Amino acid sequence: MQAYLLFSISLCLAVGSLAERPHPCKSPPLVEGSMALTILKEKTFGVEKFSYDAFEERVHLRLLLDQDNHTTYRDTLLLYKEGIAYQIFRHNQTCEKVHFKDPWKPMEIPRDAKFQSQVIIGSLSAPAEGLLVNNWSGTVAEPHDDYLLTFTEFGCLPVHAWWYNIERQTLLSLSFFDMVLGVEDPEVFNPPSFCDKAEPGNDAALTSFFDALI
Amino acid sequence: MQAYLLFSISLCLAVGSLAERPHPCKSPPLVEGSMALTILKEKTFGVEKFSYDAFEERVHLRLLLDQDNHTTYRDTLLLYKEGIAYQIFRHNQTCEKVHFKDPWKPMEIPRDAKFQSQVIIGSLSAPAEGLLVNNWSGTVAEPHDDYLLTFTEFGCLPVHAWWYNIERQTLLSLSFFDMVLGVEDPEVFNPPSFCDKAEPGNDAALTSFFDALI
Repeated sequence: MQAYLLFSISLCLAVGSLAERPHPCKSPPLVEGSMALTILKEKTFGVEKFSYDAFEERVHLRLLLDQDNHTTYRDTLLLYKEGIAYQIFRHNQTCEKVHFKDPWKPMEIPRDAKFQSQVIIGSLSAPAEGLLVNNWSGTVAEPHDDYLLTFTEFGCLPVHAWWYNIERQTLLSLSFFDMVLGVEDPEVFNPPSFCDKAEPGNDAALTSFFDALI
Repeated sequence: MQAYLLFSISLCLAVGSLAERPHPCKSPPLVEGSMALTILKEKTFGVEKFSYDAFEERVHLRLLLDQDNHTTYRDTLLLYKEGIAYQIFRHNQTCEKVHFKDPWKPMEIPRDAKFQSQVIIGSLSAPAEGLLVNNWSGTVAEPHDDYLLTFTEFGCLPVHAWWYNIERQTLLSLSFFDMVLGVEDPEVFNPPSFCDKAEPGNDAALTSFFDALI
């Protein structure tokens, strides 16, 4: 009961102090979690497990993709500092190493994003029944998609991200869940030994994080 | 700090005790909140404020609807026990009273729904940064739509509801937010005095809750 009261009070104080408009924020530097991926036009649905390291600028993605009733498993390691990406095929212990020139993009609300609203998913009437989140919108310069981002007020964790273009009728939706602060096994950012001999191909197969997603 | 620890422990215990599969649950009897409404085929988007009273089986909906770039405001009171619905037009103090024969459907996970998964929106690594939810699926007998429901594990509050039919390419999506337990002003369930003289029309304009939504 004491915990409940203290928690409720601290939450009320925190919410009260938010009378001023929330500021764009950056997610913690080490996060692991999952995201549900939807690409509307291509009827693509998948679940992506990710490990994220903003210190060393690297991301490991493990994708289970359902596209046109065909299921694919993909294991991708993006090393932004080295400008290298690995496609890892563990079932036959092979690797594709490709150049990857996308600049590092941390998990964050861009500085020029427009604050839309602060809402509670669920309810704050009792502890553990609700989550305070902020909604932001903006436009990406290239390829000129609009975006909607929902991040938690506390912890600045992504909840939902939409990139869409009404003219081109495209929509990429990412719903984030099961996130943990920290990375359980930093080895996930090292390519497996059977990748040692892979040489980067001349044709850069991965040009952006979004390409890597699918 | 004490509150944080106690809260974390109680949450861990609660999560631990959920090793068994969650059971279908029913939302609290008195709830107020908002929902974002999307009907994909009709390009309809709206925000609906609702007051819900499961004791007396009545719902008050105040809709701000954006359909084909045309904005509508609608104020609807559904009295299930009486089998009566009111469309209330406050700007000119008029009322439409219609028969409403839809059986009462409480906010709940249907008993025959299939449990899909339990996930955390955000993270449980720190307090107030995450929300534990359950995903359920099933099929409505009539009009044979499939549904996906996401409800909070604690409190059994709706987070997201999708009704869809792949053959007919229809999708109705409701995202719930800003919910409060209890009803601030029970008067919202009483039709305003200028509705007193309204008589139910012969043509039942409202046949279901979904009709009332839009």
